[in-house]
Amino acid sequence: MAKHKKFSRESFTMMTELVLPNDTNTLNNLMGGRLMHWMDIVSAISAQKHSNRTVVTASFDNISFKKSIQLGNVVTLRAQVTRSFNSSMEVHITVEAEDIPSGKKFMTHNAFATFVAVDQSGRPIDIPELIPETEEEHELYAGALRRRQLRLILAGRIKPEEAKELKSLFDIKK
Amino acid sequence: MAKHKKFSRESFTMMTELVLPNDTNTLNNLMGGRLMHWMDIVSAISAQKHSNRTVVTASFDNISFKKSIQLGNVVTLRAQVTRSFNSSMEVHITVEAEDIPSGKKFMTHNAFATFVAVDQSGRPIDIPELIPETEEEHELYAGALRRRQLRLILAGRIKPEEAKELKSLFDIKK
Amino acid sequence: MAKHKKFSRESFTMMTELVLPNDTNTLNNLMGGRLMHWMDIVSAISAQKHSNRTVVTASFDNISFKKSIQLGNVVTLRAQVTRSFNSSMEVHITVEAEDIPSGKKFMTHNAFATFVAVDQSGRPIDIPELIPETEEEHELYAGALRRRQLRLILAGRIKPEEAKELKSLFDIKK
Amino acid sequence: MAKHKKFSRESFTMMTELVLPNDTNTLNNLMGGRLMHWMDIVSAISAQKHSNRTVVTASFDNISFKKSIQLGNVVTLRAQVTRSFNSSMEVHITVEAEDIPSGKKFMTHNAFATFVAVDQSGRPIDIPELIPETEEEHELYAGALRRRQLRLILAGRIKPEEAKELKSLFDIKK
Amino acid sequence: MAKHKKFSRESFTMMTELVLPNDTNTLNNLMGGRLMHWMDIVSAISAQKHSNRTVVTASFDNISFKKSIQLGNVVTLRAQVTRSFNSSMEVHITVEAEDIPSGKKFMTHNAFATFVAVDQSGRPIDIPELIPETEEEHELYAGALRRRQLRLILAGRIKPEEAKELKSLFDIKK
Amino acid sequence: MAKHKKFSRESFTMMTELVLPNDTNTLNNLMGGRLMHWMDIVSAISAQKHSNRTVVTASFDNISFKKSIQLGNVVTLRAQVTRSFNSSMEVHITVEAEDIPSGKKFMTHNAFATFVAVDQSGRPIDIPELIPETEEEHELYAGALRRRQLRLILAGRIKPEEAKELKSLFDIKK
Repeated sequence: MAKHKKFSRESFTMMTELVLPNDTNTLNNLMGGRLMHWMDIVSAISAQKHSNRTVVTASFDNISFKKSIQLGNVVTLRAQVTRSFNSSMEVHITVEAEDIPSGKKFMTHNAFATFVAVDQSGRPIDIPELIPETEEEHELYAGALRRRQLRLILAGRIKPEEAKELKSLFDIKK
Repeated sequence: MAKHKKFSRESFTMMTELVLPNDTNTLNNLMGGRLMHWMDIVSAISAQKHSNRTVVTASFDNISFKKSIQLGNVVTLRAQVTRSFNSSMEVHITVEAEDIPSGKKFMTHNAFATFVAVDQSGRPIDIPELIPETEEEHELYAGALRRRQLRLILAGRIKPEEAKELKSLFDIKK
Repeated sequence: MAKHKKFSRESFTMMTELVLPNDTNTLNNLMGGRLMHWMDIVSAISAQKHSNRTVVTASFDNISFKKSIQLGNVVTLRAQVTRSFNSSMEVHITVEAEDIPSGKKFMTHNAFATFVAVDQSGRPIDIPELIPETEEEHELYAGALRRRQLRLILAGRIKPEEAKELKSLFDIKK
Repeated sequence: MAKHKKFSRESFTMMTELVLPNDTNTLNNLMGGRLMHWMDIVSAISAQKHSNRTVVTASFDNISFKKSIQLGNVVTLRAQVTRSFNSSMEVHITVEAEDIPSGKKFMTHNAFATFVAVDQSGRPIDIPELIPETEEEHELYAGALRRRQLRLILAGRIKPEEAKELKSLFDIKK
Repeated sequence: MAKHKKFSRESFTMMTELVLPNDTNTLNNLMGGRLMHWMDIVSAISAQKHSNRTVVTASFDNISFKKSIQLGNVVTLRAQVTRSFNSSMEVHITVEAEDIPSGKKFMTHNAFATFVAVDQSGRPIDIPELIPETEEEHELYAGALRRRQLRLILAGRIKPEEAKELKSLFDIKK
Repeated sequence: MAKHKKFSRESFTMMTELVLPNDTNTLNNLMGGRLMHWMDIVSAISAQKHSNRTVVTASFDNISFKKSIQLGNVVTLRAQVTRSFNSSMEVHITVEAEDIPSGKKFMTHNAFATFVAVDQSGRPIDIPELIPETEEEHELYAGALRRRQLRLILAGRIKPEEAKELKSLFDIKK
């Protein structure tokens, strides 16, 4: 029987947050942990939309905090599933901060998380295939395999030499 | 002039949290984002203890959520600085969950974060060198260089072939 | 000098929230007050985007809570400025709830709020004119005057017979 | 059988809140949404006291935010049921803010909400009749009918010409 | 110059809270710490009303948690200053819990806290004298001296034999 | 049958908190109620570790707030069971605050709480005996009896002349 399929855009989720005093450190910068908390929520909702299931966070890829976000800034988080496997999905998250009075708006973060869809007793369960449409969606879809291998190596579950897709990243010729 | 030095254990920080209803999903599992929020706080405090400065989160390494933590569990987070560079530090975080009635206690997570110490205008500032003492501290100290190279590659700031320390991880001989 | 103008769509703001245990009453329904809190945040951000200013809530129109939203539902709030006056704006807010496992999605609320843009000492300040584009935006723009008169009557600041625009609502011919 | 009756004063509820940093915007004013959240809680408790039932918010009337409340102010909310219908009640809410150091105390808001009493499966259920005693209670009791008609018109459930009680508000003679 | 005086009732403060899921333990009982948090807020506001100053908590007397409060209960806290000293005040707090559906209402706690009024640099500052009026206020006023001696003994600041007022409590004749 | 025994150190619990804006009053001092909330959590977890049961707070002894804790301080709470009775335990809590930039660290509080272990229907249940090991543990163990008598007198459950252990505190010779 053919597996159910869904478009990447059907999982699109957008979340807007206002940076409040309790979210900031003594320099009035948004604390990293609060941002990761928001990233997890927006990407979990995106994964739920794709799978129509309860989902649990399986992993968060390396996150680099390059630009600081200030007290009072408006933070917009966007998430979309990039590729689905048997019961797991990769979600791409982007974060944009906006300083309303000055009209400055800038991308601050870019991250990947994976989620597993589970049934009511917590066991992994099959999810629909994902169909990319736009050029960006195709690119993210293609890269998902490479990122997955890196995760498996970092988790010690496969050996680097088995990670064929990853070779492009590490530019290893022979 | 000789730089100030501090022992790794001086930055040891321990945090205990109780998993409350608002921290959980519909399966009564602790949500990943809440855990990352706690990880960020405990490791930021550890980095502050080493540097005696305000710190900002620079990066969080890949986190894999293997075991689920339940509503009502007691979560113990421990953090300790593994190595310091000019103004940045790597912090090692472990997470342990405990189901009190059954007496089950298990390690659930193991993660690395980096922080930058900054002055009151937010500019990076020099921090003390770190001295490892125990065998585990020495091992974490040695591995910090390799993990740092992986971060730089993943952030696109160095090329894989420049990452000499990383080769052991990817087991590339020649 | 010509006044600055902005399109209605430039103020579009979308916010997604997950209904958590503390947001619900003993029947596991989202409490009205929590929803109004979210409505205020999403519409305040929308008003900030239009005015590029700090804004303060001036009024919330009658809100009718017709359908209940459940624990675990995903709530999507959308806000957009419908019309601007000297220093005040009307914002239209819609609320959609989604029960992910069953795939049920339904509009639950529809509300109007007004905000005043203020300078750093809290005094009202001029804001850009708003240009409606789509048919729906034109309709909301036209209705804003009528809703404004109703607000002024309800606040006792104008007499009903002065409210020419409102007559259509109350269908009073003479 | 005669229906159970209760006095208006039996539903009196008073709630005191301290304005904390996270409740305020960048001008240190209490955000409207937080105040509406508190208004909903105090009036829901008042409706519960009258009905001895779980209640759900049915509507909030137009709220006008005339005076700003500051960080550190003490906010006192008072709620009392004004009239009961079959399974619904109208509650009157007043808000008073106090700046303790200066000893300034002022009424800031005045609002009406309606609630429906429900049984454990969420179906509307009969509630006691309300008996007004003081002059103010009698006035609020009398006005409740007029406000109810306005709500029904605004919700599009009755036609303005059917709203006989409302005519006094709109002062329409013929 | 005569010192300013105020009546006990001028400091009366009433606070109502709804017990939400995050306030409870796994047996759905209100956690003691959350209740103490509320007790501190209501009594601090009461002390502010008497002194018209910022106040800091100086001590909380022994609190005994006799009856449990349940999820969904309405908790009413009442506080009133019983006696003022130079810059400190004693506040009496009572807690009442109500199970609305069953109509059960019961006193659960009875506590005393002391606060010190401070100026903007945090130094203790003179406050008005308190005048008790009702019989209960007179009794609380009289007992305040005895409770104060017990606090001083427990804090090791006076010797038991200096605590003349306390003797009645310990019923020590000779 | 011999009763199960556990060492005092097995119940050791450490909790670290960062003082955030919402935890402070207008002088930027940590509010007493928030601290008591944290004290209750850390000591409840400690009591759970000793008893392997759900616990409910039975009492909190007199707490004196001598030193103020500032916004941005790191607060470390430590708790350990000092002695167990049939189904109740006494827990000792110490609080230490640290101002990271200045390197100042100081003990701020020292408190005792008691907890009762209960089964799933809320009835008290037997717990293990506690074995003190270090000198400090022995001292706390010995003092627990005296503090218990004071609690019983303050709660009006025993007469002062029955409190033999307490006499040392009040230094009453005959």
